[in-house]
Amino acid sequence: MEKIVRQGLLYDFYGELLTEHQRRIYEDVVCNDLSLSEIAQEQGITRQGVHDLVKRCNRILEGYEDKLHLVEKFQQTKVLAGQIQELLKAYQENGDMAVLAQAREIASQMIQI
Amino acid sequence: MEKIVRQGLLYDFYGELLTEHQRRIYEDVVCNDLSLSEIAQEQGITRQGVHDLVKRCNRILEGYEDKLHLVEKFQQTKVLAGQIQELLKAYQENGDMAVLAQAREIASQMIQI
Repeated sequence: MEKIVRQGLLYDFYGELLTEHQRRIYEDVVCNDLSLSEIAQEQGITRQGVHDLVKRCNRILEGYEDKLHLVEKFQQTKVLAGQIQELLKAYQENGDMAVLAQAREIASQMIQI
Repeated sequence: MEKIVRQGLLYDFYGELLTEHQRRIYEDVVCNDLSLSEIAQEQGITRQGVHDLVKRCNRILEGYEDKLHLVEKFQQTKVLAGQIQELLKAYQENGDMAVLAQAREIASQMIQI
């Protein structure tokens, strides 16, 4: 996964556990794609300070994922939902009942995750 | 939701953020259904101490859920997966293509959650 996408995902899941200050700067870097210099100027801190804060936030967010694996778990359910979609599309094209049964099986797996 | 079920769910999601000591005792109460007195004796602390620790863990776990809503989010995907299952079952019984289209629509909703 591209680093910025992973950062965005981790932030979506665990961002609320950062401080408001960390959130503001991390969002500017990861979601709003501002440069470190822009943010440094805006927040009245050094460019290095912004860099360190982002690095620290990455570590914090990855630390939560290491413990909880919730991004991973969610990604799994999305993969399964995508598989159901593909199977139902295939079924509509070929009318194969085995394909439909497979989609039901995946839905039942999702309930058990 | 029954309190013990909710405690179990919260623990499943956020339990790793408790200390090892908290986890051991919380598990004994919530998952292993031991009495406070049994645990107190086993851990060499007072019954009141066990009670306070469980209350504190409940607060910590609920605090994570208040911020992250990940139990809620997961429950939503399970409800949707259950709906897909029901729709596919109904389709197998009635052959109504609209029902199939609905199942596909729900799978696509799940990908976007």
